[in-house]
Amino acid sequence: MSDPTRATLDALNGTDVHLSHVCKARDATDRVGPRRFLHAGPPIELAGIPGPMRGAIITGLLLEREAGSVAEAEAIIDRGEVSISPCHDANAVGAMAGIITPNTPVVVAETTDGIRTFSPLNEGIGGAMRYGSYDDITLARLRWLGDVLAPALDEALRHSDPLDLLALVAEGLRRGDDCHNRLVATSATLLVALTPGLLRTRFEREDIAKVVSFMAGNGHFALPFAISAAKAVTLAAAGIPGSPIVTAMASNGREFGIRVSGLGDRWFTVSAPIGDPVLLDGATLDDVTPTMGDSMISETAGFGAFAMTAAPAIMSFVGGDMAQAQEITARMRTVCAGTSGRFLIPAEDFRGTALGIDVHRVRATGVEPVINNGLAHREPGRGRVGAGITPIPVEPFAAASRALEEAGSGEAGAAEELEFHA
Amino acid sequence: MSDPTRATLDALNGTDVHLSHVCKARDATDRVGPRRFLHAGPPIELAGIPGPMRGAIITGLLLEREAGSVAEAEAIIDRGEVSISPCHDANAVGAMAGIITPNTPVVVAETTDGIRTFSPLNEGIGGAMRYGSYDDITLARLRWLGDVLAPALDEALRHSDPLDLLALVAEGLRRGDDCHNRLVATSATLLVALTPGLLRTRFEREDIAKVVSFMAGNGHFALPFAISAAKAVTLAAAGIPGSPIVTAMASNGREFGIRVSGLGDRWFTVSAPIGDPVLLDGATLDDVTPTMGDSMISETAGFGAFAMTAAPAIMSFVGGDMAQAQEITARMRTVCAGTSGRFLIPAEDFRGTALGIDVHRVRATGVEPVINNGLAHREPGRGRVGAGITPIPVEPFAAASRALEEAGSGEAGAAEELEFHA
Repeated sequence: MSDPTRATLDALNGTDVHLSHVCKARDATDRVGPRRFLHAGPPIELAGIPGPMRGAIITGLLLEREAGSVAEAEAIIDRGEVSISPCHDANAVGAMAGIITPNTPVVVAETTDGIRTFSPLNEGIGGAMRYGSYDDITLARLRWLGDVLAPALDEALRHSDPLDLLALVAEGLRRGDDCHNRLVATSATLLVALTPGLLRTRFEREDIAKVVSFMAGNGHFALPFAISAAKAVTLAAAGIPGSPIVTAMASNGREFGIRVSGLGDRWFTVSAPIGDPVLLDGATLDDVTPTMGDSMISETAGFGAFAMTAAPAIMSFVGGDMAQAQEITARMRTVCAGTSGRFLIPAEDFRGTALGIDVHRVRATGVEPVINNGLAHREPGRGRVGAGITPIPVEPFAAASRALEEAGSGEAGAAEELEFHA
Repeated sequence: MSDPTRATLDALNGTDVHLSHVCKARDATDRVGPRRFLHAGPPIELAGIPGPMRGAIITGLLLEREAGSVAEAEAIIDRGEVSISPCHDANAVGAMAGIITPNTPVVVAETTDGIRTFSPLNEGIGGAMRYGSYDDITLARLRWLGDVLAPALDEALRHSDPLDLLALVAEGLRRGDDCHNRLVATSATLLVALTPGLLRTRFEREDIAKVVSFMAGNGHFALPFAISAAKAVTLAAAGIPGSPIVTAMASNGREFGIRVSGLGDRWFTVSAPIGDPVLLDGATLDDVTPTMGDSMISETAGFGAFAMTAAPAIMSFVGGDMAQAQEITARMRTVCAGTSGRFLIPAEDFRGTALGIDVHRVRATGVEPVINNGLAHREPGRGRVGAGITPIPVEPFAAASRALEEAGSGEAGAAEELEFHA
């Protein structure tokens, strides 16, 4: 194994991340403003964004009180008076549309070395900002999350033991979650960890009851906690010269892009895939926004689809079985440079998950990395329309591999691939 | 399959059980009194009880204020002024020593047909009444559980959706618990289900905080909820003439006994086994009380060791691996008459667990049913000293099989065994 690869794996494997605080995004970054928002995936022009992202920007303009009506918000967008930039450039990750505005409530993760990342609180399945909903219910919930739940959780943290977010994910894998598409047990763990502290805050009892009920009713509540931690370890693993390890995968619904440790902030992109998803409610593929969001930072950090055998319920949901789950986790081992020391799969005798997608290996084997993902309806605010295990085309990985080669960092990896497959 | 066997399986598989209430044992049964206690396992003479059971009776006498000191309690026991009878005869199940006194806080489960069962609240790992502790901490905790936690949970239930206890167990198997020796995820599920209701009770906020913290800190909190439900379905399956299906397994630390559906309340016993446990803290087998408790009602009802592949963490704790877990669940299928329709094992593509131990099959195959169990130190109050996957000798099952034969109910089962193993 080359030294850059080893150093990258060490960072992915050895970086500890805890929950720092819960706040509004304006207190976590200076990259947002009243009409300056973050979005999921690689850069995209405002004019070209998909439906759910446009819907989420409408929500954002209403939330920020820049617009008094949906029509006003649409006009602002159509006049091009909103600027957007990738979450990843702000050290953030957003599920689905990933629109983050100053008043978006976010969880902030922090490594022991002080790297900070953040991700919006999960609003629940169904109508939600991340799916582009801009109705009154969505807006009222967002305000409540920002004004009550976020400060209550934040104060609860001051009355709780430090929350190790990667231990939370690791425990989730022991409880049948992949921590990307299934987080119901992990969300329960989080509620158990935070509720005693919540009861010791200055918040009214009725507010605490609402906060606890909200968490209890949302099986995806733990998602931003997991993916902000994943972003933190992949940031710790970024910027290692010559390293062929992927440090980000993300999609804006049009283009799917990856970043690679040895190649700085450059995105290598391909048309966003749809895969072969299981659709809900008689929906058709025409209804689906192609893969969108930053949450595949999960797989980048070694969980999600790479821990498929830990979460047979996801396989059964998409019509697969345990043998297919084993085939997927085994296949992912062929494109990864290492094995996680902390994400252990019970059903594989606590073997670590595949860790660190190596672009040289993807190029050499032609094996497509997979992600577990939810899919949004093409129209704003229609919510989740399906879910799938989606293979990502080899092209961006191969392009990154060639770019490393051209920079003189390709040989060690290529030699090792041959040995790996002997 | 014989009609009695089918009817028994239908009862085990089709009986629904919900959490009825949480109270003191005196409000759940008339079989307890100030010096009249229940104990785990088949009947035993007071003079012959093992150390932890004696310790728990001391606790009980102090709890009931029948004794003002340990010495007084010991004197009462030595004079034989306490009467004890099996929990099972009161439709109850108690973990480990299983001593239940009037003021013992218990959870009460109820079937849709009105069968009620109960089991003491779990006090946590370590010093506890069920291990025979009688120190001030144990006593104070028991009083608090009975005076604060139990009524708070009971009132919380009035503000919560009905709690389906078998659905709780089924979900536990999806979250890496066997629901006998590992219940950490199930306890979290329970906390999630009950906390919103707790916040709506008349209890003081500080009391609620203590209740939630206690539940959050006790990974076995869900055990009495699971085993009282198991007792309820096995009671529904009891008393079917000619049925060879086991409806109770329990041990008083000296004798391990079983009851069989077609054989009424008769116990078939054997010396309590120790098995080959993993011991803690440099303990030796001489320190161990042989298998004790009523909690193997779990296996009787189709979970616990019969769901071994759902809980690889237990296998790894006792030094085993997933292949051994698969071997155990497969082996248990050979002695069971059916397959659970609701306890589904994710890692076995959601195949149901083995359900309904058939004494004829055990006799014909010589395969020993296994249980997951914790082991108590031989001395009162020393707590858990080990854990194991313990095979139960064939003798009591064979004796019950012969008893059924003598009563003219053996043929159908025996014929089927041959076919089963062809």
